[in-house]
Amino acid sequence: MDRRDFTKGLAVAGSASFLARPVPRAVTIPLPSTAPKSMAMVMYPGMFPLDLIGPHAVLGGHFPIHLVWKSRDPFNALGITFTPNMTFADCPEVDVLFVPGGTTGTIAAMEDEECLSFLESRARSAQYLTSVCTGSLVLGAAGLLKGRRATSHWAVRDSILPMLGAKPVAERVVVDGNLVTGAGVSAGIDFGLSLMATFAGEEMAKIMQLNIEYDPDPPFQAGSPEGAGAELTGRLTGYYGPFLKDVERAARAARRAT
Amino acid sequence: MDRRDFTKGLAVAGSASFLARPVPRAVTIPLPSTAPKSMAMVMYPGMFPLDLIGPHAVLGGHFPIHLVWKSRDPFNALGITFTPNMTFADCPEVDVLFVPGGTTGTIAAMEDEECLSFLESRARSAQYLTSVCTGSLVLGAAGLLKGRRATSHWAVRDSILPMLGAKPVAERVVVDGNLVTGAGVSAGIDFGLSLMATFAGEEMAKIMQLNIEYDPDPPFQAGSPEGAGAELTGRLTGYYGPFLKDVERAARAARRAT
Repeated sequence: MDRRDFTKGLAVAGSASFLARPVPRAVTIPLPSTAPKSMAMVMYPGMFPLDLIGPHAVLGGHFPIHLVWKSRDPFNALGITFTPNMTFADCPEVDVLFVPGGTTGTIAAMEDEECLSFLESRARSAQYLTSVCTGSLVLGAAGLLKGRRATSHWAVRDSILPMLGAKPVAERVVVDGNLVTGAGVSAGIDFGLSLMATFAGEEMAKIMQLNIEYDPDPPFQAGSPEGAGAELTGRLTGYYGPFLKDVERAARAARRAT
Repeated sequence: MDRRDFTKGLAVAGSASFLARPVPRAVTIPLPSTAPKSMAMVMYPGMFPLDLIGPHAVLGGHFPIHLVWKSRDPFNALGITFTPNMTFADCPEVDVLFVPGGTTGTIAAMEDEECLSFLESRARSAQYLTSVCTGSLVLGAAGLLKGRRATSHWAVRDSILPMLGAKPVAERVVVDGNLVTGAGVSAGIDFGLSLMATFAGEEMAKIMQLNIEYDPDPPFQAGSPEGAGAELTGRLTGYYGPFLKDVERAARAARRAT
């Protein structure tokens, strides 16, 4: 599929008139033919937007990415309105399958039969199964993590992943065969660059890194429980309390994972 | 404004029914009273989504954030449909004003009288004027950077910012009085954490950093021209070619900046 077909596909997929008048892309970075031909990023009410937008900033615009959910109705995620461009029913087989994380909305996705059966079915033909943050718990609820090494947000990694049959790994990006999982939220950028290197080579991943000026310089070193220290980690875990209780219940009830 | 008023405000602002049924937030992190009471994030067709979503991941959900453009019609940005929740005309005075970057869409924003006069007017009462990536060029076109230290994406920082009256600074986050600008794309996360520390103290910024697990570990060191080296930087600059030409023309024509 060349760029023209891709643009045509977008126009057909979108019923709203604005999609027929796309903003021209000033910057086109050609990928080698080893790049995937298609990707489905699941998106859902209450997802944490950066989980999806981080990898999308690296991977987006270079091959067709379907933004998929049960319906194409707009929904709210952290106060931002997102609109899927394809339903589960309309989504074809894809090379790469991706699920972002979140909190309450993620639990709803873990319990949604339509979502789980979509993942189960498309996973059979996908070359890569991927997630960022608590998105791995949705893959787990779909029965896709059994016996596999995976990561998730630090707050649920060691407690919830094993309940879904996975072997938790405390790394930023974990690759186990065709399963690629990223740690919490911002790890999606490291995850996206790792995937791009796999798809298109290190040089292309480096160009994408330069494109998004990813030369991180956090003002503090509090991005991990170890860096933040016990007091701050304890306070944040306290704020997570109700979510942690509910996600544990959802993991125990995930029948596909057992 | 407490959380209940905020939720009510969102429901009033949104005409679509899904906004009346917000996904419950499982995680609420209380901010001190020094935090801003309101923020307007400009969003526009062709913006680079991560420019906005990076800072939003740190700042979002804690005080009302208006997502503002000329109309509330959905638009396309890198293949993702975004929907503003407020028009320029309806946007009140806010504590924090923010503009994300992009390429072709950013040039259109630099040339849009309605956008520029909104920024000019709300800047008079805002406590902070802020941007990420080429968003600073839009602030500059609105005449808001004259004589001030600022940054932008590396590809335009030293060439275009001076044409808009700014003094370019090669740092990830640049603070000049009430003007806070971030470098390219992914710098928005560092920028957001810096702002949160200013608003709510270092401890709160650290909690937000832990919340998004921002413990970056780029697989390569190519996030700056120095790190990527001359060959890759030259190739990417070549892909930027048409944009760089057009943005220079737009900067020369920016009458408010002179």
